[in-house]
Amino acid sequence: MLTRIDHIGIACFDLDKTVEFYRATYGFEVFHTEINEEQGVREAMLRINGTDDGGASYLQLLEPTREDSAVGKWLAKNGEGVHHIAFGTADVDGDAEAVRNKGVRVLYDTPRRGSMGSRITFLHPKDCHGVLTELVTAADPGAAEH
Amino acid sequence: MLTRIDHIGIACFDLDKTVEFYRATYGFEVFHTEINEEQGVREAMLRINGTDDGGASYLQLLEPTREDSAVGKWLAKNGEGVHHIAFGTADVDGDAEAVRNKGVRVLYDTPRRGSMGSRITFLHPKDCHGVLTELVTAADPGAAEH
Repeated sequence: MLTRIDHIGIACFDLDKTVEFYRATYGFEVFHTEINEEQGVREAMLRINGTDDGGASYLQLLEPTREDSAVGKWLAKNGEGVHHIAFGTADVDGDAEAVRNKGVRVLYDTPRRGSMGSRITFLHPKDCHGVLTELVTAADPGAAEH
Repeated sequence: MLTRIDHIGIACFDLDKTVEFYRATYGFEVFHTEINEEQGVREAMLRINGTDDGGASYLQLLEPTREDSAVGKWLAKNGEGVHHIAFGTADVDGDAEAVRNKGVRVLYDTPRRGSMGSRITFLHPKDCHGVLTELVTAADPGAAEH
């Protein structure tokens, strides 16, 4: 069961400048940064609020590490903006299977590694009214600090 | 101060079909519906989770009521997808003014009426790394039911 908006994934050309925009404009601070070579992204997680399922909601700022990554190709086509949205669940495997059985294309056979040790999968945007949708099970759902 | 992800605004061609997609696929139920003539949208709010500032996070599904509305023009250009993101604050007037003073274009001189009696304004996406960004003060931040 999906119990929270886990994050909003935002693609940007320059991660450092975008992080600085969110800090200077709204006071949002970086909670975590990492490079995910499999996804081809360098990313920063900005924790916005806690959620009543014991998790949290983040902005995930994404800069491609290579032009042929999914985010790199998306940026070249669309420019900066919201790349995907992610719902948090305690059981990404079960929820991905349930969604697949309803006819929605799930992009990975089994979940892969996402931010902060999470396990993630994506649903095809053409099956989701144009929204690239991620399902995520956090390694530490209530993470309040590093 | 912005204290939560208040909602993700998603533009769609057919609100009823999109509501049914979110219900059938994820079990998300409609919390509230309304027509906002000023914005030129018919909308459904799906409440996803409560937030630790006493508010909640929603998906806001938006169908234009006229082609020349902002959402209607956006849909004609982009197709279905994420139209904007919204951050919740107890003081939309003060936060809009603070953001304006940092050089970000605020689209309304004073906040207008948003979903469920809220007061809202928008920030220019070109000043926000491609993300149309809404600031919202809810009428009833912790609304748990109608």
